[in-house]
Amino acid sequence: MTENKSAVSELIKQSAEDVHKKIIKSQKPTMSTPIRSLSNVKYHEKKGYFEMAGKNKLRTLTVSTVKTFAQTLKMMALSKQLIDTDDMATKREAYYISKNWGKAGFAEQPESDTIMDDVEASFGVNREQLKFIPEEKGGDIAGSLIVIDKDGKGNPLRIDCTKFGSGAYSIPIDVEGLKFESNAKFVLAIETAGMFQRLVKYDYWDKQNCILVSMGGVPTRACRRFIRRLSDELNIPVYAFVDGDPYGYFNIYRTLKVGSGNAAHLNQYFCVPRVSFLGVTPQDVIDYDLPTHPLKEVDIKRAKDALKNDPFVKYHKPWQKSINQMLKMGVRVEQQAFAKHGLDFVVNKYLPDKLANNKNFLP
Amino acid sequence: MTENKSAVSELIKQSAEDVHKKIIKSQKPTMSTPIRSLSNVKYHEKKGYFEMAGKNKLRTLTVSTVKTFAQTLKMMALSKQLIDTDDMATKREAYYISKNWGKAGFAEQPESDTIMDDVEASFGVNREQLKFIPEEKGGDIAGSLIVIDKDGKGNPLRIDCTKFGSGAYSIPIDVEGLKFESNAKFVLAIETAGMFQRLVKYDYWDKQNCILVSMGGVPTRACRRFIRRLSDELNIPVYAFVDGDPYGYFNIYRTLKVGSGNAAHLNQYFCVPRVSFLGVTPQDVIDYDLPTHPLKEVDIKRAKDALKNDPFVKYHKPWQKSINQMLKMGVRVEQQAFAKHGLDFVVNKYLPDKLANNKNFLP
Repeated sequence: MTENKSAVSELIKQSAEDVHKKIIKSQKPTMSTPIRSLSNVKYHEKKGYFEMAGKNKLRTLTVSTVKTFAQTLKMMALSKQLIDTDDMATKREAYYISKNWGKAGFAEQPESDTIMDDVEASFGVNREQLKFIPEEKGGDIAGSLIVIDKDGKGNPLRIDCTKFGSGAYSIPIDVEGLKFESNAKFVLAIETAGMFQRLVKYDYWDKQNCILVSMGGVPTRACRRFIRRLSDELNIPVYAFVDGDPYGYFNIYRTLKVGSGNAAHLNQYFCVPRVSFLGVTPQDVIDYDLPTHPLKEVDIKRAKDALKNDPFVKYHKPWQKSINQMLKMGVRVEQQAFAKHGLDFVVNKYLPDKLANNKNFLP
Repeated sequence: MTENKSAVSELIKQSAEDVHKKIIKSQKPTMSTPIRSLSNVKYHEKKGYFEMAGKNKLRTLTVSTVKTFAQTLKMMALSKQLIDTDDMATKREAYYISKNWGKAGFAEQPESDTIMDDVEASFGVNREQLKFIPEEKGGDIAGSLIVIDKDGKGNPLRIDCTKFGSGAYSIPIDVEGLKFESNAKFVLAIETAGMFQRLVKYDYWDKQNCILVSMGGVPTRACRRFIRRLSDELNIPVYAFVDGDPYGYFNIYRTLKVGSGNAAHLNQYFCVPRVSFLGVTPQDVIDYDLPTHPLKEVDIKRAKDALKNDPFVKYHKPWQKSINQMLKMGVRVEQQAFAKHGLDFVVNKYLPDKLANNKNFLP
């Protein structure tokens, strides 16, 4: 993440030269890409994130691969051009740019997305370094944080996240260049915009001197990277507050903490190994007498699958215990369920209770 | 929207007293609610938005309606309590609060949402006035705008939307209390976060002295109301820049401009009658040689349905012409398609071309 731009540009150039040399010598050029799936990741708590286990697929230039090969090279060339001109392209824009590549043009965007993922995995860098940026945005911030960015002319800007009233600071797509100042005690990463707004309404960040992050469901790459950088640079704990269901546990929390299988080449940058799980846990349902909904078929399947195949869950006994408890209880719970006991219950009872015992948070 | 809080609270009280009086007299109390569907709206360009055509459903207290009746009264009571204590509840929180209503508790959230919609339609006010706020957030702002909000202690805050660098100001859920200062020439409401980021990257708002709004798909209520208030209070034009497909034309643009059928009681507040359609139009596909995709079945159905049943389309001949042109061409186009001609094409060619002829925008 700290390599300078010309290093990535140089990497692309070298790779293209290797291909070129082989062709000149009438040899078949090859390109190697790591296999991107949960079956090709390993988890060590000390490293803190899913790493690729080392399986690769090798693409050799043949009659049947010529188009994909050409597309990969064109994609690399586009990346180099973006780096050299300090521009960027969204995934969708990259797809449309290919419409000028003649026969190497992509028919559908999923094709260009796959090639882009392969390119970033091959080089072991991330899309932002290749100057391809995600389409989606996401992640709002309120609380004790000053973000230091630059304006269009390169002058520094100090963005004070205590000064947005009922609004919030919306995280940009590329967060690498940002700097931070804060004396906050912790970061609270919240699943739903509704709960975020509830805590903003009750001035929770002011009372607790913390930074609130609204993830709005599964956090985007930019949101994950932003939280990771807060965690690294401010050196304060990050707590996750999400719905108590398999989607909240695995798709949101586990992805935030250790990453995912199909983008394991990115986890090093995009996951937040030091996050811990504040709630909502299955035990909270009992302790706080919360209204629930029955687990759906898909919830049960996802939970059983995690117990069997997820390296993160297989490593952490407390998670296995909690998932089994959830399966036994047969229910899921939403983070708004505390409203049953009054709208201020979450702020005045649940969060203080939990934070007083943060050693007991799930890993 | 300008009535003070106690007026709505008083309205609720009177309505409850009417029901109470009838019951005391052993008469059957009734409640009347407007029918919320596209079949119960009318459109006049001068008014500028879909209005309800006046059909009502009458709910009488009987054995079979007793539960819904009780739920409606409880929902009204909750609203009154929120108004009186200056609090608010999300739709999901309101659902969970009902878990303490004994037999009047809702089994599923869609039930409580429907009662809430009926209550707001009955009183002719909107959910924000009842202190029920939407769950979803959405809408980012960058450009020549100062938003004036208050901090948690009631002190005024000036939020300068030129000072967010690569980030943005995230619109809060309730925008009624905000004030604005701006010398911008127009508002550009953009469908995708990717295009918004492209224009931010190229300092478009600075060069054109405008306000950029990222709607992120179909704009949320808060986003629509925010744009509407900009339009009213700054008295500047609003231009919409969305994908060239039936979803962009009707679900996004038409909803933004005149509102929707199932929430016609809100259109008065939430639509932006003065918005006009910059693009992408079917004619743009020809004029700018844009890459396209074939219309899907659902696109064709939606377009034909609009020609036949949508009061807005039936009123505006230029829209009928454009929709027929699209159906004849058989293609849809995305706003990122301009990238085919280079990433700066949209900023340096398309938008300037279009804005120079803004009299020709679709209505």
